Amino acid sequence: MERVEHRACFGGWQDVYEHASKTLGCTMRFAVYLPPQAEHAKLPVLYWLSGLTCNEQNFITKAGAQRYAAEHGVILVAPDTSPRGDDVADADGYDLGKGAGFYVDATQAPWATHYRMYDYVVHELPALVEAELPATGARAISGHSMGGHGALVIALKNPGRYRSVSAFSPIVAPSQVPWGEKAFGAYLGDDRAAWRAYDATALVAHATERLPLLIDQGDADEFLDGQLKPQLLQAACEAAGHPIELRLQPGYDHSYYFIQSFIGAHIAHHAKALHV
Amino acid sequence: MERVEHRACFGGWQDVYEHASKTLGCTMRFAVYLPPQAEHAKLPVLYWLSGLTCNEQNFITKAGAQRYAAEHGVILVAPDTSPRGDDVADADGYDLGKGAGFYVDATQAPWATHYRMYDYVVHELPALVEAELPATGARAISGHSMGGHGALVIALKNPGRYRSVSAFSPIVAPSQVPWGEKAFGAYLGDDRAAWRAYDATALVAHATERLPLLIDQGDADEFLDGQLKPQLLQAACEAAGHPIELRLQPGYDHSYYFIQSFIGAHIAHHAKALHV
Repeated sequence: MERVEHRACFGGWQDVYEHASKTLGCTMRFAVYLPPQAEHAKLPVLYWLSGLTCNEQNFITKAGAQRYAAEHGVILVAPDTSPRGDDVADADGYDLGKGAGFYVDATQAPWATHYRMYDYVVHELPALVEAELPATGARAISGHSMGGHGALVIALKNPGRYRSVSAFSPIVAPSQVPWGEKAFGAYLGDDRAAWRAYDATALVAHATERLPLLIDQGDADEFLDGQLKPQLLQAACEAAGHPIELRLQPGYDHSYYFIQSFIGAHIAHHAKALHV
Repeated sequence: MERVEHRACFGGWQDVYEHASKTLGCTMRFAVYLPPQAEHAKLPVLYWLSGLTCNEQNFITKAGAQRYAAEHGVILVAPDTSPRGDDVADADGYDLGKGAGFYVDATQAPWATHYRMYDYVVHELPALVEAELPATGARAISGHSMGGHGALVIALKNPGRYRSVSAFSPIVAPSQVPWGEKAFGAYLGDDRAAWRAYDATALVAHATERLPLLIDQGDADEFLDGQLKPQLLQAACEAAGHPIELRLQPGYDHSYYFIQSFIGAHIAHHAKALHV
């Protein structure tokens, strides 16, 4: 992998790496914040999954997370949201194709060739990070909107792999909302049974690890009623006896102003689990 | 004035206003962060002047300043960096015309019609803010690069108007570097004597107020040797006995990663002066 950005930030380094991904069959970029403590020790990693239209830049430029990562000695890793490049299939609209990988492994043409973001985030990316950077094997995962969906699904499907999970404004039930129906229909096909493997609200019934789900959701979020519907996950958690802390934050919308307001609390939450 | 953005952030509101500026003869936008304390009290204001190519968005999305403003009970106001609109003269290149007003009142055609950012920032904008928002008359000023130049010049030229001043990576001697020579030549004409009225290094010799100049400058800044040259201002301050604190920050560049790392210290510095 090659370092393509390297900027001092809160005593550490905000870097961006580029590498040839075997899983995705294309060149990918991911962002890494190394806090100052990483100069002398291996540190745990919080993976951040971004939302629709984002790449590896949005979180590192807008969330104001580096300050808290420096405070808590946690590495931040933020991948892109889809495979990239001229060879990669795309679609009209912001909610399918490039910038909209939905953290699934596609099974349908033309998507199946490159759209394997689930496998990439769960296996290839952490293997690379833990081999090449001062990272321990202690992992946490979080994300926003489509990335909040990704974080919840990935944690629920991989017991033992993450110490903690959280999400901002996640798409908790993609099988039941327009964004998810469009993307899952394209990537996974018409058989809705296959969708359940990537739907947090469906997965929670069978989760064995019972990692508490920490979710912040703005009550002025323009996508709350149509696409996010956190009450569906809350009901599923209650039915399954799965721990969840869903916090409705009054006045907040879907933007990075919301994320920057609560990212400190999320990083503190993850740091507590990561530093035991 | 009309509010065109309104987003909850750290318990307060990150807003953007649009208004017809008499000084500039065009429609302008400026950003306002109202901390939670503004709901019940008038608060002092820190004005932030952005650098080349920026508009009112860069600082509010990338600096991570709202957290500190909420902590200290300070309103943040960030104007655009030039007049805007189809009627406004422009030039090729990022360093003249729109996005590059240099916080001067232009005297030369075609610029003199609209390019009066000095007058706008010193008079029209604070008058509007103090009439329409929960703001006291206590003001501080800061900025980055071209905006750092603007902050230093405006504070030095207006004794009694600001309680404190600071700058990140400022253009301290525009009369002596390519960015300033190009802009001042166009806006103010060939007579270099006229340039001294907007050159911090020249102004400091005659400053009567002696407000300490707090400056942070990254030593890995790609513009340090060619455009910024903080040592010129330091020498002028030493010659004039003017107080200056110039901090060379090792490893930092010219980006918002640098600003976000030290904006907390600057806001604390201003809050101390503003809340006496």
